[in-house]
Amino acid sequence: MTGSHIDTVRTGGKYDGNLGVLAGLEVIQTCQENNIIPERPLAVAFFTNEEGARFAPDMFGSLVFVGGMDVETALDTVGIDGARVGDELERIGYNGATPCPAHAPHAFVELHIEQGPVLEQQGIVIGAVTGVQGISWQEVTIAGQSNHAGTTPMALRHDPAYAAANIAVFLRDLATRYGGNQVCTVGKIDLHPNLINVVPAKAVLTLDIRNTEEALLQKAEAEVLEHLRQLESSEGISITTRQLARFEPVVFDERIVSLIESLAIENNHSVMRLPSGAGHDAQMLARVCPTAMIFVPSVDGISHNPAEHTDDHDLEAGANLLLHTMLTLCALETIA
Amino acid sequence: MTGSHIDTVRTGGKYDGNLGVLAGLEVIQTCQENNIIPERPLAVAFFTNEEGARFAPDMFGSLVFVGGMDVETALDTVGIDGARVGDELERIGYNGATPCPAHAPHAFVELHIEQGPVLEQQGIVIGAVTGVQGISWQEVTIAGQSNHAGTTPMALRHDPAYAAANIAVFLRDLATRYGGNQVCTVGKIDLHPNLINVVPAKAVLTLDIRNTEEALLQKAEAEVLEHLRQLESSEGISITTRQLARFEPVVFDERIVSLIESLAIENNHSVMRLPSGAGHDAQMLARVCPTAMIFVPSVDGISHNPAEHTDDHDLEAGANLLLHTMLTLCALETIA
Repeated sequence: MTGSHIDTVRTGGKYDGNLGVLAGLEVIQTCQENNIIPERPLAVAFFTNEEGARFAPDMFGSLVFVGGMDVETALDTVGIDGARVGDELERIGYNGATPCPAHAPHAFVELHIEQGPVLEQQGIVIGAVTGVQGISWQEVTIAGQSNHAGTTPMALRHDPAYAAANIAVFLRDLATRYGGNQVCTVGKIDLHPNLINVVPAKAVLTLDIRNTEEALLQKAEAEVLEHLRQLESSEGISITTRQLARFEPVVFDERIVSLIESLAIENNHSVMRLPSGAGHDAQMLARVCPTAMIFVPSVDGISHNPAEHTDDHDLEAGANLLLHTMLTLCALETIA
Repeated sequence: MTGSHIDTVRTGGKYDGNLGVLAGLEVIQTCQENNIIPERPLAVAFFTNEEGARFAPDMFGSLVFVGGMDVETALDTVGIDGARVGDELERIGYNGATPCPAHAPHAFVELHIEQGPVLEQQGIVIGAVTGVQGISWQEVTIAGQSNHAGTTPMALRHDPAYAAANIAVFLRDLATRYGGNQVCTVGKIDLHPNLINVVPAKAVLTLDIRNTEEALLQKAEAEVLEHLRQLESSEGISITTRQLARFEPVVFDERIVSLIESLAIENNHSVMRLPSGAGHDAQMLARVCPTAMIFVPSVDGISHNPAEHTDDHDLEAGANLLLHTMLTLCALETIA
């Protein structure tokens, strides 16, 4: 019953933008067409609001499913357009009656494009995902003294733009020092008034710090905080921080990660282990059952962009590996 | 005929926002009220478009007066609202017929608030302005690779936000190394798309570099350019620069600067020499006649802001010193 006995899933570019769900449906279809009766029931999961672009927080559908949030709280969430989740689900006919938290599955596997450049750069088709990086998001607001750029000697400045730049450089240095899976990003900087000849009065910037190790994430956060305190003192500025998001790293089930690796090799696909830098519903399911993910390459690592693309043969390899992984997991009495 | 024989100018806060012109008119009024006939004619100058907020470049009124720009070119200048200078001067009745360049005056002195914090910090009432800093304005555009902040390892990034921060920190270090009158400012940074979890595709920032020594200004510009070339190479990004403004430093007339110093002391005012970090019409007049400026303190160094303020006794000290300086200059056969 392991995959090599059955037909492969047929793809052809039709997964663009929804690989996990469509490949899941093809797994079911392939079982039906081949008269395969899995030893445990197979289901495809569609979770509401994975991205979180309209309703915060992201991934609350799977969070409610596993009991991490009350269903009422989720339904009462109001989006950036003022709409209420419950009303919108009612309107589109998706306000189901199944109680939450629901029964925990025997196992959960999510197929996804990598959304990063690692597999492509390494020339590898399958990523056996070891877990999801922990995420620390902070907004940093720096208040200084607005002044004339020509008439204010350097020693008398309290310059939030310099402080913002200093913090961004500090974060890069921190990521280099830590190495490994540590990533740090300053993607947003807003200066006020943002004029060529004015030392700004205020700067607001965001810090995105991620690591697969919770201890290293906490160490990075503490180092950043200490650096901000030093900058306040040396520059004569005031710095406040606001936590925008904080998720601990998630470690996937070693048994399933190994299974994905060995099935990939059995099916003649190159494979490597790697963590996910982005959040996925699988990290919520990992709270209640053995869970892992399969990645396939993203061309140029581009994602959340119309230019996002994965080659057909990689999509097909991923869908086939999902099929083989699910059928193997269905046949296992327990996942040790 | 030097100042100590005549009444002081009477002020009382009424100079706010227009010290030079109003004090100039009071100098004339004081001469008339005291039956003083200066040995040379005294005139108060009002130059169009000193600030340049609507029509570029700034200070073109005085530039035309001294022959640095054709009057036709100035009149044909179109502003940010689409209006033409000549039409607007006609409309308000200020399109005069005096040919330009006009006759050079015997001497020119401009009274102004400092617009910076130096006099107030030093507890000094009168600034004898030695010249105007040279200005180099550049816009720097950095093109990199937009990527997911979680899934893109540090080593695979081409991050324009980091490069912008690196440049701002480099500029601060350069100003510290040079010391003296060197000032450097990054007042404007725009990231695209400017989102917390996206390594930006592009950054645009401005560099404002000023020094009283042209040789040091050129050295700073060359160092910055070399640093940008190194960053392009080390970060795998593309950097282009556009010059937005470039003025050489202006040195005021030593004879008049000394006169302002000695008259300040004679009138029991504390005085110090300092350069102007901002541009003024006096720097255009310095091309054709002996020129200098008098500064009075700006509270907190604030300028171009509704909170701009100079204490009444400082306004009065400046206006009186202007009176004494002008009467002395009128009495001098030549300014050696």
